[in-house]
Amino acid sequence: MPSKYLNFRHNVSWLILLLEALFIIYKCLTFSPADGLYPGDTTYAVFQDVNHMMTFGFGFFLMVLRRYRFSSTGFNLLLIVLGVQWSMLLEDFLPLFLIKPNEGLLKSIPKAVISLTAVIISTGAVLGKANPLQLIVMTFVELIAFCASRCINNACMEVLDLMHVHLFGTYFGLAVAFCFPEPSPGLDKNRSTPKSDLFSMLGCVFLWVFWPSFNSVLLQNFRMRAVLNTYFALAVSAVTAFMLSALTTKDGKFRMAHIRSAVLAGGVTVSYSAETITHPWIAMILGLLGSVITILGSHCLQRCFNPPFKIHDTLGVHFTFGLPAVLGAVAHIVLLVIKQWTKSGRSQRLDYLVLVHVGAFCQTISFALVTGFITGFILNTKLFKKIPVSKYFDDQLYWE
Amino acid sequence: MPSKYLNFRHNVSWLILLLEALFIIYKCLTFSPADGLYPGDTTYAVFQDVNHMMTFGFGFFLMVLRRYRFSSTGFNLLLIVLGVQWSMLLEDFLPLFLIKPNEGLLKSIPKAVISLTAVIISTGAVLGKANPLQLIVMTFVELIAFCASRCINNACMEVLDLMHVHLFGTYFGLAVAFCFPEPSPGLDKNRSTPKSDLFSMLGCVFLWVFWPSFNSVLLQNFRMRAVLNTYFALAVSAVTAFMLSALTTKDGKFRMAHIRSAVLAGGVTVSYSAETITHPWIAMILGLLGSVITILGSHCLQRCFNPPFKIHDTLGVHFTFGLPAVLGAVAHIVLLVIKQWTKSGRSQRLDYLVLVHVGAFCQTISFALVTGFITGFILNTKLFKKIPVSKYFDDQLYWE
Amino acid sequence: MPSKYLNFRHNVSWLILLLEALFIIYKCLTFSPADGLYPGDTTYAVFQDVNHMMTFGFGFFLMVLRRYRFSSTGFNLLLIVLGVQWSMLLEDFLPLFLIKPNEGLLKSIPKAVISLTAVIISTGAVLGKANPLQLIVMTFVELIAFCASRCINNACMEVLDLMHVHLFGTYFGLAVAFCFPEPSPGLDKNRSTPKSDLFSMLGCVFLWVFWPSFNSVLLQNFRMRAVLNTYFALAVSAVTAFMLSALTTKDGKFRMAHIRSAVLAGGVTVSYSAETITHPWIAMILGLLGSVITILGSHCLQRCFNPPFKIHDTLGVHFTFGLPAVLGAVAHIVLLVIKQWTKSGRSQRLDYLVLVHVGAFCQTISFALVTGFITGFILNTKLFKKIPVSKYFDDQLYWE
Repeated sequence: MPSKYLNFRHNVSWLILLLEALFIIYKCLTFSPADGLYPGDTTYAVFQDVNHMMTFGFGFFLMVLRRYRFSSTGFNLLLIVLGVQWSMLLEDFLPLFLIKPNEGLLKSIPKAVISLTAVIISTGAVLGKANPLQLIVMTFVELIAFCASRCINNACMEVLDLMHVHLFGTYFGLAVAFCFPEPSPGLDKNRSTPKSDLFSMLGCVFLWVFWPSFNSVLLQNFRMRAVLNTYFALAVSAVTAFMLSALTTKDGKFRMAHIRSAVLAGGVTVSYSAETITHPWIAMILGLLGSVITILGSHCLQRCFNPPFKIHDTLGVHFTFGLPAVLGAVAHIVLLVIKQWTKSGRSQRLDYLVLVHVGAFCQTISFALVTGFITGFILNTKLFKKIPVSKYFDDQLYWE
Repeated sequence: MPSKYLNFRHNVSWLILLLEALFIIYKCLTFSPADGLYPGDTTYAVFQDVNHMMTFGFGFFLMVLRRYRFSSTGFNLLLIVLGVQWSMLLEDFLPLFLIKPNEGLLKSIPKAVISLTAVIISTGAVLGKANPLQLIVMTFVELIAFCASRCINNACMEVLDLMHVHLFGTYFGLAVAFCFPEPSPGLDKNRSTPKSDLFSMLGCVFLWVFWPSFNSVLLQNFRMRAVLNTYFALAVSAVTAFMLSALTTKDGKFRMAHIRSAVLAGGVTVSYSAETITHPWIAMILGLLGSVITILGSHCLQRCFNPPFKIHDTLGVHFTFGLPAVLGAVAHIVLLVIKQWTKSGRSQRLDYLVLVHVGAFCQTISFALVTGFITGFILNTKLFKKIPVSKYFDDQLYWE
Repeated sequence: MPSKYLNFRHNVSWLILLLEALFIIYKCLTFSPADGLYPGDTTYAVFQDVNHMMTFGFGFFLMVLRRYRFSSTGFNLLLIVLGVQWSMLLEDFLPLFLIKPNEGLLKSIPKAVISLTAVIISTGAVLGKANPLQLIVMTFVELIAFCASRCINNACMEVLDLMHVHLFGTYFGLAVAFCFPEPSPGLDKNRSTPKSDLFSMLGCVFLWVFWPSFNSVLLQNFRMRAVLNTYFALAVSAVTAFMLSALTTKDGKFRMAHIRSAVLAGGVTVSYSAETITHPWIAMILGLLGSVITILGSHCLQRCFNPPFKIHDTLGVHFTFGLPAVLGAVAHIVLLVIKQWTKSGRSQRLDYLVLVHVGAFCQTISFALVTGFITGFILNTKLFKKIPVSKYFDDQLYWE
């Protein structure tokens, strides 16, 4: 019986080997010793920042569960290295679908790393419930789906790609989590201890420091504007997180889970419009609203939304990344409309602009939900040897 | 009864909200869409370094107390984000007081972050004894006082501002700590455990790595000279820390608290003259002396100074940051005199130079002490619901 | 009796003081206020990366032993700061031995830090077994030996120096470890706990992120090529590490020790040829092979090699750094041959090329082994008050 779920060695190892062989052969076949392959020096520091943040920062941040710390850090690294290679391979096929080609390897790695944010967010929703085999398959399917969603946005609506990464990751993750059986309520392994909370808080501070790099790494112009707007939004959302946490808990104490989610809300909220906001106070208000929606959302969702739908969102990605991203997308459209309005009175163009952005927003969420359901359904077939509910959130299953 | 000190939710939350509203409205009113608002690319890496160091590094470094780790990291973040905004607002008013205006936002954030070092150092002196309300008020008062001290130095004595940040932070913090009641000697919550010592040591190594960025971030010229001098001073003070720690403890064992304080002494000592020192060996000697004064100071102060004055300096900021800063200020004056002497024989100018620097030094310390006493006195009025001595150094009071 | 090994205060402290005085006097005597002393701005970010990685990353990485965490971090810092100064002093004498002079201080510090990698690797082999006195002496002797080995390579064979740092460090460390008595098999202090494994894993992720900087810091041209090749090799070796770990353990579980060593193998393997590889897939294959050799090596060496030779390699540096470096050196020669072959048919030159590189490779290993044996023999004389086997792997001996 244990062999049923324990003995996934053949599957995982051979799958990984197969994939890695595929990547190497692909790289080998498509070598193009162009001059642009290895570019100049300029973006290295930011490239490093984003890598550092994803690998080390999220490795820390995901260590919320007290018995799942090895897996949190380890699988995070595994999914990133597999996902980056897969994402770069997918990017190479994008020109076929009318998206403009890549600009050298040094630019394409950060792009792939940012696509991976969607995967890491989705992982947060099923943290401790999916086995490595399921996580790897989910990574691959999600990256394809995200790529397809970007292509649709780009082809039909001419909307900038990669913007919807937090949105897509959250709703894909929620849809996948919906398909997994809920853990029994008496289980105490999915509670955090002060120590795991502390680690996670350190990871959160780490992400907080690097978020400006994250929001600005792919920009050509106005990079410093994006950095500063993100910094202001993050500062205000950190302040608001403390304020609201004290207001919404009894005794007026701070709750670490609140701080951890809401501190980053500002960065997610301004990610849509970081480069277009021309006054810091707009970014600050967005940071404030992002933090408010996260903390209120964490109370509402955990009571009113998750129980009826039987969704168990381990890390709370819905309110940590999803709600601020929705707010950010809406704010982005509002800001665009205001900007267009103040510029000229041509309402024709305005209608179209709003329509396109709302369309892209709805398309992303619905595409994420649909593909997420399908993925979740497939992952819960017998093929993937899903782990029993009693073994959730436990390192012992995967680590010696 | 518990409600007296527990129920500070209204105060803290509304205070934070009020302040944040003030900042946003201020930013909103003073928007100046000048071209220089969002500057170029050059200083981003160092800007990032300093942020990283203050938020993540000090968050680690302050985790000395075994039951106060949530608060150390959390309140450090809260004070930084509030303080940076307040400091930037203050900076905008400085031109009224004859200080030259700011050079764009990207420069003004590091400037604000460096001003905040004073606050973080003062926090170290009252770590675990002040509640968040007191800490926030202290942050605001201290930043105003530091700004005023800089204005006086600048207006009367034409001394470079921001230099005295360690000095001001230490003596302000000590004066505030003097007003707080001492913890009872039997209390064991203010002792460190091996684990909290380890965290703090990691934070210290982190600060050690980033100190050269800290000392050079605001310089226009000779930035690399400041970096290298700081590196050499830090290297020598780390070596000396190990040497003296083994010499001054019985059995010749190393004491983690020694290492933690003395390793950084070199960086503080050369912060005054990092850009003017032209030979590495001078920086090395300063690093050596800084480390010596820190370790000897830690023995003397804890035995002879703190008990009679009834000061309980939780983190030992007096010898960690205060004494090396005093040494650095003195060394700065001596180096200036020697430089002036070797250049020319005009003793008139020399007298004036020494007078100005000694004046600025004395003014900073006395101003810090006076404003610190006043702040400490105000913080211990009934208004601020100070926590009872038995509840010192305890996360449980603030965190769920 | 305890005083025999406990009371090493006089030795360690006075030795450190003597050395530090030597460094300062040397710097003082050789001051040359040339313009090139303090160079430009360009390499600061990478200089910072390498420092960060060595001090903070290895400080974390070495925390494998559950009772030796203070010493791991602390002594790592002490050896780095002492070693950097000693290494810079040695570098100043290199021009006497036909090696081209240094290019300013900012370049010479990373060079010294990279030389120190050899020391840190050797430290890993005797981790917990050598007292600080022995470690300091070992650092000094090893840096001289490594410098001499570089001079021989450079003078006789015109091979690029600093390339063999991992190779030298490993075999020097193994030879030293051979001379130390083995710990008794029943001792459980040299086992890792989940917590120490976690810390070490975090350090490993940290090193993983910064390895591209490490491999590219000293290059003049093709820096970005080295960065990208290292990144690809690291990515593939991380993937392979998970795959092989699941395949080689029973139950198909992952073993943290495997992941920790094999994740970095790719970076070590491509360190020889990072700048000359022109296609990413070659780097990927090297990363794959590096990871394979590390995990297979960890099984073989611990069963078949270490017991007969009575070597106790605490951190497993032989398979973590040694085997990938051997593979990298061989691959470097093969790649050179292929490149030469495809370019022209002059086999004369080819023979010479292979001979030179094989010669440098053999010379480095044998020189490391011989000097390592001698050092290990000297360190185990009565002079150095070696610690008894029962006190191995214990912080209590060195820290209050």
